[in-house]
Amino acid sequence: MITPKTLSGFKDRLPKEAMAKGAVLDKLAHVFKSFGFVPIETPHLEYAHILTQEQGEIQKEIYRFKDHGKREVALRFDQTLPLARFIAQHHSSLGLPFKRYAIGNVFRGERAQKGRYREFTQCDFDFIGSHSILCDSEIIQVIIAGLRALDLEEFSVWINHRKILNGLCQHFGLHAQEDTHTLLRVIDKLGKIGHEGVLLELNAHFPKIDFKEFLGIINTKQEEDSLEFFKRVDHLKSYNATLKEGLEELESLFALLLALDINPDHFKVDFSIARGLGYYTGMVYETTLNQLTSLGSVCSGGRYDNLSKSFSTQNLPGVGASIGLDRLLVALEELELVESKSTSARVLVVCMHPSHFVYASQVAQNFRQSEVNTELYPEIGKLKKPFSYANQKGHEFVVVLGEEEVQKESLTLKNMTTGLQVNHLSFLKALAMVKE
Amino acid sequence: MITPKTLSGFKDRLPKEAMAKGAVLDKLAHVFKSFGFVPIETPHLEYAHILTQEQGEIQKEIYRFKDHGKREVALRFDQTLPLARFIAQHHSSLGLPFKRYAIGNVFRGERAQKGRYREFTQCDFDFIGSHSILCDSEIIQVIIAGLRALDLEEFSVWINHRKILNGLCQHFGLHAQEDTHTLLRVIDKLGKIGHEGVLLELNAHFPKIDFKEFLGIINTKQEEDSLEFFKRVDHLKSYNATLKEGLEELESLFALLLALDINPDHFKVDFSIARGLGYYTGMVYETTLNQLTSLGSVCSGGRYDNLSKSFSTQNLPGVGASIGLDRLLVALEELELVESKSTSARVLVVCMHPSHFVYASQVAQNFRQSEVNTELYPEIGKLKKPFSYANQKGHEFVVVLGEEEVQKESLTLKNMTTGLQVNHLSFLKALAMVKE
Repeated sequence: MITPKTLSGFKDRLPKEAMAKGAVLDKLAHVFKSFGFVPIETPHLEYAHILTQEQGEIQKEIYRFKDHGKREVALRFDQTLPLARFIAQHHSSLGLPFKRYAIGNVFRGERAQKGRYREFTQCDFDFIGSHSILCDSEIIQVIIAGLRALDLEEFSVWINHRKILNGLCQHFGLHAQEDTHTLLRVIDKLGKIGHEGVLLELNAHFPKIDFKEFLGIINTKQEEDSLEFFKRVDHLKSYNATLKEGLEELESLFALLLALDINPDHFKVDFSIARGLGYYTGMVYETTLNQLTSLGSVCSGGRYDNLSKSFSTQNLPGVGASIGLDRLLVALEELELVESKSTSARVLVVCMHPSHFVYASQVAQNFRQSEVNTELYPEIGKLKKPFSYANQKGHEFVVVLGEEEVQKESLTLKNMTTGLQVNHLSFLKALAMVKE
Repeated sequence: MITPKTLSGFKDRLPKEAMAKGAVLDKLAHVFKSFGFVPIETPHLEYAHILTQEQGEIQKEIYRFKDHGKREVALRFDQTLPLARFIAQHHSSLGLPFKRYAIGNVFRGERAQKGRYREFTQCDFDFIGSHSILCDSEIIQVIIAGLRALDLEEFSVWINHRKILNGLCQHFGLHAQEDTHTLLRVIDKLGKIGHEGVLLELNAHFPKIDFKEFLGIINTKQEEDSLEFFKRVDHLKSYNATLKEGLEELESLFALLLALDINPDHFKVDFSIARGLGYYTGMVYETTLNQLTSLGSVCSGGRYDNLSKSFSTQNLPGVGASIGLDRLLVALEELELVESKSTSARVLVVCMHPSHFVYASQVAQNFRQSEVNTELYPEIGKLKKPFSYANQKGHEFVVVLGEEEVQKESLTLKNMTTGLQVNHLSFLKALAMVKE
């Protein structure tokens, strides 16, 4: 006997969870399509050298191995590098601008922790081939529309601009790009190690710089109305041109978003948002749920100058974001915003004798032809079993077909919620009760 | 520069193909749910020993490697062994009978051939935990309903029974289970190597047996009405009890299916259907499209006695089938049954100046709020570009917003199919034309 178990850090989704995930993905895909985003698919497996460009911790986490042809291959760890490869490979036939979404699993051999998995689902959407602020505005709109479609109401997309962070670095004497990247990576840990932790790390990296004032600015979060906020931080424009540009681009973005039918609480400025990844160059954002801030960001993204620079000389700027679906599902469950059923059928049909199989199959088919999802219980015997099955799985109605029902071409219908049972109904009357 | 390319045997799906696949999966999932099947998900990666039970060619094709924790792991090559592991692991919380569907990618390091990929999508549905013929009937119904939902009209599920094949083996002097398996694997190649090829191979394996009459029976295919067919082959029941049982079970199945509202051309008997896999014990079937028989089977399956026997002492019989989605998509494209668009948006909104960005964003949002998928072209400049973009991608309407439109809060609408352009419409009039 082999012990049936999944690998550590990997998990099965049972029907209830898989149905909840499917419902969430359907709603998100509906939103993506409403903005004209189209789906693409890339393989789970790529040449290893395609995926080993991004530096940092992630390299140790990549699943890589030699395939049957001795090629070095790797399982994708995100959907951004595959997108970069995809765009460079197909851009001539795709036509630019190009707006894609991709829902897929990625793999990271991280240390196993509660709620963190080594295979998880990402839901990415990117707008490639344009510098226009309309794209930035659209990605924010999609995030907000997507979360609203899931009945989430209290959340904010926290927006920052890399030019603001770069401008601040310049102002405080950090000029080398490498130093800025180091600083961004430390800032990115604010949520994990806190203000004091960040200060300690920064002092260790750059002992000559006093980061108190710097961190004071970084800790600026919009609490008031957008216009008032931009007034409050307007003096920063005088620090340098980079900072000024960053702030002005944020102002333009907010002007666009405020003109739309969107709750202004859903998008706010937060100067501490850094995003660790190297490729971001413009706006960056994270999204938190007000009731579950400890969960961290459920959707993060930003603008990048040139996604495919390792693959192509063509300049391909873009902006995009990624929803961490597993985390989002945890949140929706905690907020009781997911349906909790283990069956896709509303009606369970039960019969009492093999000689009723034909009639039972016909009744089930009739319900289905009337757009009522219907399951036929395959076993005969005591009624206790199918009824407890229906209770366990969540069928709304049980149809019982005994000798008398079959002879009269009728059926007995029990409403599992109210407990009401009606005997010897015609099919049409039963259908009317189910559809009521 | 890195050359952007996928691994040999792996491929990207561009939007047109990914959208067609998505539409097909939505329709199939709708059918699965109508019968009460529920989705589950298992990881792409499993302990290697879980996947290395099935014998044969497939073993050489498995992608296996050591993970970061030195565990022997493997990418799944089908969704049946993971299902067996899943059921054994979770059956107490699932409740039996259990009907699952699973749509997922599997990996096989086969020799690269045209139209064969090393990563491909399978769409499985199984009914676990019951010996009832209602389950067999249901799986056939699901296959037929699934293909009908894709607008396929001319196809047949070719059904056989392992007991018929086993009974024939007995009759012709092959008694050892091993010999029967060998014979089944050779019979399974009929489509590939033909009658003569099979005869040669069988003679090589079993030189003492005359296979002419045997192959004559194996080549029996239903062409007439079911009742007449069963009369034609009725004499085989006298060969032995196993053959008799197999034929009678097929007769019961056909009696159930013929009583339903299903075209009887969609299910027929074919004694040559063997299915190579060891775990089948009852009915087995393959599905061919009449106009594309050379494509082979698009959906195959059958009944197995005990799916999880390697993992559990509990007896878990079942019946299920698997749709090869990639092959099915090729067929649908050849039969011109897939939509051919590269955009999910019906309307493309174009504006002429950055000062119109707010108005353009509002117009696009208004269309979306009226359930019209709408894309906003992010660049300004000559109209030639967005129009050729709309032509390439397949937008039905282009909305143009110039100085005059913005001032009058109006819009200009061009129908890309008829070429008709109407200037200075109110939003409501434009919406009416789009929804017409």
